[in-house]
Amino acid sequence: MRLGAIEAGGTKMICAICDENGNIYERMSTPTLTPAETLPAMHKFFEDHEIDCLGIACFGPLDLKKDSPTYGHITTTPKLAWQNCDIVGYFSDLGVPVGFDTDVNGSVTGEATFGIARGIKNVVYFTIGTGVGAGILCEGNLVHGMLHPEGGHVLLTKHPDDPMEGSNCPFHPNCFEGLCAGPALQKRWGVPGKDLTEREDVWDMEAWYIAQALVSYTMILSPEIFILGGGVSHQKRIFPLVRKYYAQFMNGYLKTKQLEDLDSYIVCQSLDDNQGLLGAAIIGKNALEAK
Amino acid sequence: MRLGAIEAGGTKMICAICDENGNIYERMSTPTLTPAETLPAMHKFFEDHEIDCLGIACFGPLDLKKDSPTYGHITTTPKLAWQNCDIVGYFSDLGVPVGFDTDVNGSVTGEATFGIARGIKNVVYFTIGTGVGAGILCEGNLVHGMLHPEGGHVLLTKHPDDPMEGSNCPFHPNCFEGLCAGPALQKRWGVPGKDLTEREDVWDMEAWYIAQALVSYTMILSPEIFILGGGVSHQKRIFPLVRKYYAQFMNGYLKTKQLEDLDSYIVCQSLDDNQGLLGAAIIGKNALEAK
Repeated sequence: MRLGAIEAGGTKMICAICDENGNIYERMSTPTLTPAETLPAMHKFFEDHEIDCLGIACFGPLDLKKDSPTYGHITTTPKLAWQNCDIVGYFSDLGVPVGFDTDVNGSVTGEATFGIARGIKNVVYFTIGTGVGAGILCEGNLVHGMLHPEGGHVLLTKHPDDPMEGSNCPFHPNCFEGLCAGPALQKRWGVPGKDLTEREDVWDMEAWYIAQALVSYTMILSPEIFILGGGVSHQKRIFPLVRKYYAQFMNGYLKTKQLEDLDSYIVCQSLDDNQGLLGAAIIGKNALEAK
Repeated sequence: MRLGAIEAGGTKMICAICDENGNIYERMSTPTLTPAETLPAMHKFFEDHEIDCLGIACFGPLDLKKDSPTYGHITTTPKLAWQNCDIVGYFSDLGVPVGFDTDVNGSVTGEATFGIARGIKNVVYFTIGTGVGAGILCEGNLVHGMLHPEGGHVLLTKHPDDPMEGSNCPFHPNCFEGLCAGPALQKRWGVPGKDLTEREDVWDMEAWYIAQALVSYTMILSPEIFILGGGVSHQKRIFPLVRKYYAQFMNGYLKTKQLEDLDSYIVCQSLDDNQGLLGAAIIGKNALEAK
């Protein structure tokens, strides 16, 4: 099968032709400007390659309700040019089934199909970078609910030594994204994240917050594995710190084989940052198979 | 169909004969003493009534993994007499299919089958009483994950005016159950919950904590409805307070039709405290149909 895939991000759009075994044959990338500037080149890419279906894993918020008049649209995004963009509709004239989901649901699908969570039915994938988001596979299904998870806005308790007043989220004084995303690091420490790589105190506090979020996710979803992706996942030193604080916060409350081996329970993304793109391909394949 | 149902609680065991339309024909209740004292009368009740299947909704933690050697057992409960009790095995000689799940998954099943959440696929049911637990229906499936949710142990931020040091949970200094269950109220205010019914400050703080938990659940699961049951749900004054603080914590971040009508989004249990028993009956029916 020839699976078309779009990973639609706030910075760049990646288009690719994949197969059902996780191979990527062709790929193009274009900056995310306005829809009028960005979408035509993407459309052209798929016109030039024969595909059986298309999957789109997109930054949100999105309308994923198939019976909604605005299904397939990006909705109230702060990227104003993309508000109310009918991204699914734009590709409908390709004449193939189009699957559509959040960027993070793309990533969790990629990891659960081809990556470290292959075959696992309860998986949480976090991206921690410019923002924080969670893609969730629960009992084998992607979670949508009334809208879709906004997993970066789970509420956390502030670290007693956090020098930042409030958080960097305009809505919540103590949410995960407002305390842990890249812009929050810059606000807290006064310099960009890339200049903080050697600061142990910075990553210790970051790990303390991430671990706290993971504990609440464990209590609610009981996932079998946590995968961390996004810019923060490139800071390898953070993983042992997250596991240490996670164990402290859990405090021995639950006993499962997964929790006995936190090195295998809280892990880094495993597909070289192609998890979203490969997941998008599978979301397209699922749309084809649902026909 | 004649559906046998057990709601196994820490204080009492309720056995009933139901049908698939939510009717309860016969019922017996017996105090939860030790398995040797309590189980025989329950077994006798079902010997005396012809049933097609049996569903058990039980206090936990439980082993729900069908491929586990201890499937069907109550595991590390603080009710020591019941540790490692093979409650499913005890009823196996009745010769009917036996379904088994948590007490709160029973309740959410009851509400989603016969109650206020009828037909809804993403439902969170909280019991807030002697303890705090969450039964979760996600995309139409009961959530189990690596174990089952322990929804009362989601972490919260302490109220700045909370006079209690730490919490009442032996594991977590700031979890939902440790801050909101009945024993936490007694620890915080020095008198039993039943003597606090007229204290506005008590229920204001309780609602503040509950709302905070509901916000994190919203961000993670995006449920279509929240149902509150257990002793606290009999304090009707708490509902408007929970909705008020929920709106404050959300701060307009998400826009959905459900969130525009919090009176219909955060609601009281609707089946006169029979939700667990009726859900158990359906869990039994599901086991029969899976044969």
